[in-house]
Amino acid sequence: MKLLVLNPNTSAAMTEAIAQAARTVAAPGTTVVGACPSFGPRSIEGFYDEAVATAGVAEQVRLHADAQGIVIACFGDPGLDAAREATTAPVLGVAEAAFHAASLLATGFSVVTTMTRTCTIAEHLVHKYGFERRCRGIHGTDIPVLALEAAGDDVLAQIEACARDALTRDRSGAIVLGCAGMASLCGHLQQRLGVPVIDGVAVAVKLLEGLHALGLGTSKQGDYARPLPKVYAGWAAPLGWPALPD
Amino acid sequence: MKLLVLNPNTSAAMTEAIAQAARTVAAPGTTVVGACPSFGPRSIEGFYDEAVATAGVAEQVRLHADAQGIVIACFGDPGLDAAREATTAPVLGVAEAAFHAASLLATGFSVVTTMTRTCTIAEHLVHKYGFERRCRGIHGTDIPVLALEAAGDDVLAQIEACARDALTRDRSGAIVLGCAGMASLCGHLQQRLGVPVIDGVAVAVKLLEGLHALGLGTSKQGDYARPLPKVYAGWAAPLGWPALPD
Amino acid sequence: MKLLVLNPNTSAAMTEAIAQAARTVAAPGTTVVGACPSFGPRSIEGFYDEAVATAGVAEQVRLHADAQGIVIACFGDPGLDAAREATTAPVLGVAEAAFHAASLLATGFSVVTTMTRTCTIAEHLVHKYGFERRCRGIHGTDIPVLALEAAGDDVLAQIEACARDALTRDRSGAIVLGCAGMASLCGHLQQRLGVPVIDGVAVAVKLLEGLHALGLGTSKQGDYARPLPKVYAGWAAPLGWPALPD
Amino acid sequence: MKLLVLNPNTSAAMTEAIAQAARTVAAPGTTVVGACPSFGPRSIEGFYDEAVATAGVAEQVRLHADAQGIVIACFGDPGLDAAREATTAPVLGVAEAAFHAASLLATGFSVVTTMTRTCTIAEHLVHKYGFERRCRGIHGTDIPVLALEAAGDDVLAQIEACARDALTRDRSGAIVLGCAGMASLCGHLQQRLGVPVIDGVAVAVKLLEGLHALGLGTSKQGDYARPLPKVYAGWAAPLGWPALPD
Amino acid sequence: MKLLVLNPNTSAAMTEAIAQAARTVAAPGTTVVGACPSFGPRSIEGFYDEAVATAGVAEQVRLHADAQGIVIACFGDPGLDAAREATTAPVLGVAEAAFHAASLLATGFSVVTTMTRTCTIAEHLVHKYGFERRCRGIHGTDIPVLALEAAGDDVLAQIEACARDALTRDRSGAIVLGCAGMASLCGHLQQRLGVPVIDGVAVAVKLLEGLHALGLGTSKQGDYARPLPKVYAGWAAPLGWPALPD
Amino acid sequence: MKLLVLNPNTSAAMTEAIAQAARTVAAPGTTVVGACPSFGPRSIEGFYDEAVATAGVAEQVRLHADAQGIVIACFGDPGLDAAREATTAPVLGVAEAAFHAASLLATGFSVVTTMTRTCTIAEHLVHKYGFERRCRGIHGTDIPVLALEAAGDDVLAQIEACARDALTRDRSGAIVLGCAGMASLCGHLQQRLGVPVIDGVAVAVKLLEGLHALGLGTSKQGDYARPLPKVYAGWAAPLGWPALPD
Repeated sequence: MKLLVLNPNTSAAMTEAIAQAARTVAAPGTTVVGACPSFGPRSIEGFYDEAVATAGVAEQVRLHADAQGIVIACFGDPGLDAAREATTAPVLGVAEAAFHAASLLATGFSVVTTMTRTCTIAEHLVHKYGFERRCRGIHGTDIPVLALEAAGDDVLAQIEACARDALTRDRSGAIVLGCAGMASLCGHLQQRLGVPVIDGVAVAVKLLEGLHALGLGTSKQGDYARPLPKVYAGWAAPLGWPALPD
Repeated sequence: MKLLVLNPNTSAAMTEAIAQAARTVAAPGTTVVGACPSFGPRSIEGFYDEAVATAGVAEQVRLHADAQGIVIACFGDPGLDAAREATTAPVLGVAEAAFHAASLLATGFSVVTTMTRTCTIAEHLVHKYGFERRCRGIHGTDIPVLALEAAGDDVLAQIEACARDALTRDRSGAIVLGCAGMASLCGHLQQRLGVPVIDGVAVAVKLLEGLHALGLGTSKQGDYARPLPKVYAGWAAPLGWPALPD
Repeated sequence: MKLLVLNPNTSAAMTEAIAQAARTVAAPGTTVVGACPSFGPRSIEGFYDEAVATAGVAEQVRLHADAQGIVIACFGDPGLDAAREATTAPVLGVAEAAFHAASLLATGFSVVTTMTRTCTIAEHLVHKYGFERRCRGIHGTDIPVLALEAAGDDVLAQIEACARDALTRDRSGAIVLGCAGMASLCGHLQQRLGVPVIDGVAVAVKLLEGLHALGLGTSKQGDYARPLPKVYAGWAAPLGWPALPD
Repeated sequence: MKLLVLNPNTSAAMTEAIAQAARTVAAPGTTVVGACPSFGPRSIEGFYDEAVATAGVAEQVRLHADAQGIVIACFGDPGLDAAREATTAPVLGVAEAAFHAASLLATGFSVVTTMTRTCTIAEHLVHKYGFERRCRGIHGTDIPVLALEAAGDDVLAQIEACARDALTRDRSGAIVLGCAGMASLCGHLQQRLGVPVIDGVAVAVKLLEGLHALGLGTSKQGDYARPLPKVYAGWAAPLGWPALPD
Repeated sequence: MKLLVLNPNTSAAMTEAIAQAARTVAAPGTTVVGACPSFGPRSIEGFYDEAVATAGVAEQVRLHADAQGIVIACFGDPGLDAAREATTAPVLGVAEAAFHAASLLATGFSVVTTMTRTCTIAEHLVHKYGFERRCRGIHGTDIPVLALEAAGDDVLAQIEACARDALTRDRSGAIVLGCAGMASLCGHLQQRLGVPVIDGVAVAVKLLEGLHALGLGTSKQGDYARPLPKVYAGWAAPLGWPALPD
Repeated sequence: MKLLVLNPNTSAAMTEAIAQAARTVAAPGTTVVGACPSFGPRSIEGFYDEAVATAGVAEQVRLHADAQGIVIACFGDPGLDAAREATTAPVLGVAEAAFHAASLLATGFSVVTTMTRTCTIAEHLVHKYGFERRCRGIHGTDIPVLALEAAGDDVLAQIEACARDALTRDRSGAIVLGCAGMASLCGHLQQRLGVPVIDGVAVAVKLLEGLHALGLGTSKQGDYARPLPKVYAGWAAPLGWPALPD
């Protein structure tokens, strides 16, 4: 299957790193294609960044119409519902994927993320998806997203310390990494902490492979039906959907 | 006060109609400025349209930095949190404003909206804002948004019939109009139905005037703090926030 | 418009102070009338006090039948539903008004109130109105209500300290003052804390002016319909509603 | 034990009927005392009636300081929290008692009540007490409360028909009678319907006998502590609580 | 009435102790019969123990078909729904009984239990029964269940300390004992703590006596209808239900 | 990987059919082992059946200690938490797996199940797992579980009709099959209905393969830690856990 790993920010380095992390776990028959929008923020660290990146997700999903599975590789899951409207393939956000996986492995989990100010974005998702009782805490480390690109030992130590503290204080049994840029740290942390450490990118890849194998894709009945044909103005003109041929 | 009425779709006619509706209810000291994004969908009738329009909200809020109050005039409240990050002025979505007002006037209310497929967007907002117990039903009429621009008697009759049915079936005491394009129908419907009929545009204008008069604006502590300085790529380059001068 | 500011306790000094606070923010066309019940507790600091004050609210709403807007100026919102039954004007409780306003300005807020034993009353309201996710903490200072009548610097300092602590511990972006008697402290605290500080009396005045301007009042369909005609016994005989003339 | 059955309305006939129903189920050692306020509505059929009756509950609880258990015998449970503050004895509302009992006997129950306009009062209680998932429906018959005093076969048939319909439509296993005035109909209905039919008065009596036997009363730590000493004005002067002797 | 006190673990000493505690509070006309399964864990301290004990509850309920009331005397309420299917008598779990009683006596309560790892079992019950807002904390003491059989002063002191801490930290007004094996400590703790201390065994006995006196039993309409006739394999063969005679 | 498909009922035919359905979707490297308890009900159609089957799950999980993934193949997910305690492998219930998958493909789904009386079991799971907002309806067909073993065209037609009705009435976009015995009908129904039709067995297999590939298993920290060493009585003696060697 062709699997699109869509990084909603415009960091080429992070896009490649996330795609590479996805390839590491992908099954032999899976071709991972990394992509990021042609416009928008270098990193997503708040609602405003996310608003612009959401349109970028729509752009890329439109361009990769042949993708058979799509990962939205940013922990705020920007544009997830939009992407589902635009395709018949299954689509997963990495926060969503991580929350689902964590709730299958422990009665409660904690999230360790980057900037504290983005915790509310994660809280909204926890609430929207129905994981209020499973997610026992969301913890900001105030490590900037782009600092993860070249994370050294001190960054890793900071994340580990935050995770240890979360496990104890939240009485949790698993850790969810709250940023797609943390994917490469997952194995190391799991080894150190002795509990499941969940990277949403890896989990999303395996979930999409599974859904694809079963012939399951996004429902086209109701809310996720193909977007209605419509004129789009300005730079977005190519993003509008044409009428279906009679 | 300078009050920005921001229509997230790119219909100039609807932008002007909504601004005009806002002017009708604005206080003498309020200057209403209508605006819409330079790009994006002519109408918003699904998650995909909304995703692109969200970036358009970010664009316009950035351009109107001197606005002292902002109405996001689309019933999905796209970009609401982003707009709040980008300003110290108070910002309201019309769905949010209408839900708040309705819950002050009746123990339960019903929403009458356009396309049935957008009901889930409204449901998400009801849930996000905490009005699950007040909102007793969301009803699609399947009238296209742009058909409201020149709504004749039959459209009005269809909306009225849907509202009457909702009041009875939902045991509701008030009607919320689920599209900023319905603003001009509000008075007529209230007279016909004999219950409060709430247009979010009008309510948002009065709420913003009130908050402004009290010196209340968006909190800059925590989640709605000014966006972090950052490089934006492509057409969005001007939307990135510069570093603050030392 | 004639706006009734109804203080449910029987302190004449507090009634006048609250009415005066309301006048400070009222629009030129608004006439503020202060009132309190002819009977009941000097201050409301528990469920028992509130029970008697609730009947006092019914008494005063009955007497001021020509009010075009009513503020129930006690943070427990006693008699709010009863008042809505008894009038076609819009009616707001100050807790309700403050919660609504705070949730428009920050993703989370904290309440700072008087006696710790009244926190449960506020919790019930938060839950009844649907603000469980917005209200991140309710904090008692154990300052008696009547001590606010002549609040000196030490009382102010105690409230400020409690608010600062709440902002940090609750990760909140705004403060709601949990007693109508704190109205006069609002501006000072907002200046000191640097976040929105919300006094329900002021907010209720502006909300009612807005609703009135839009021709919106309490729904008379369903739960808030006029009380049924009925004999009332004892001192309450004048409070019963007569049958409507044929 | 001395058990106070407090009817919050001022109908002497209904007060006596409810007390009599309580005596029918009381244990040998229980002395049932019926009482109603000296003022207020003849029946409670809305929020306004309830507001005045709430003060009446406070009055009667104050007068019967030696009661060892108190039933608030009106389905809106008016003044329940106030009564708990005013005594160390256990206190139960009949809605509360009935909801608790029903949830022990069936996975879901339905409420059959009098005026449809009071359904929202019951909904608030269901929500406040946490029975949202157990209570599957609340159904008004629009039988006036006082018509129950001399309920004939047609009233009984109307209630039975409403209950049958509720059991099917709500997929419920038990019926809660939504008015203390329905107590005498309970046995007959249970026989006819073949499911548990729960009268809150009877259940409250047995619950109070049980709590009393175990030495359990209202907690005096925290929210239900004795009311603070305070001056009460007007007719309510005797209701104020004196300071405790040193 | 014949009241079955069913201890789901296989400790004969604890079975007898719990039955004895039940007899202490039972009314003169109540015959308490203690029983435990013929198989399964000596104590229940996790989900696995509970899974086996659940079948043991089914076995005993089947054997004691003439019981007129049943207490499931383990704080996880194992097999509660199964027992209700298998009888027309009322059935109560001790966690359920204790939660109900506590919520009638205080606005919030705390649970003090044995092993911390069983707190999640209690959380599930709190959530299932709808007591999320009443139960303010669940606290493990890590005292093994069987250590309660011969609890000395130090165990008692440890439980008291945990309860004191819970009352303060949770702002609670009552304590629920989170293990049927703590029944004998209840009176002593209530005297020491000065708040209601609730033992689910005692409360369940009184609730069942009350329901029985009112002729109320488990609903046989819907979910709790008699189990369908069915072949059971292996040692469980006698547990299958035969077809009803025509 | 060795994947245990554990059918909690004792029908050998159904056990084999479910294992076969699992093999159909399993990856080349997966060895599916079917198993059912040595005791208990031939089918699970109520709480009582489920109680005995829960112990059967514990028995089989104990016997298959080398399983690297476990599917609990009954829609009530009996013994799920117990199985998680007893292994380090990932464990999934088929209801849980199906709910998770459905919520990734549609904004709302409906469940079509067997006996109406088991709907409450499914409702409890929906609530426990947090899918209240995604699951829009649970519909019983009253087809006995064992009738699925040899389901002919009429049974299929009945299920299809129920599903079509559910999609319309619930405004759903996907169907969850509410019985492991329906696995073989899944493909046919999806083709007929044109929406995703989800069989929990198939989804659980793919989820477990994915988790296993990522090195993720059940957390052993906290609630799912290895059962404590303990004596088990009677037939269950071999199920007790020994003390760990020093």
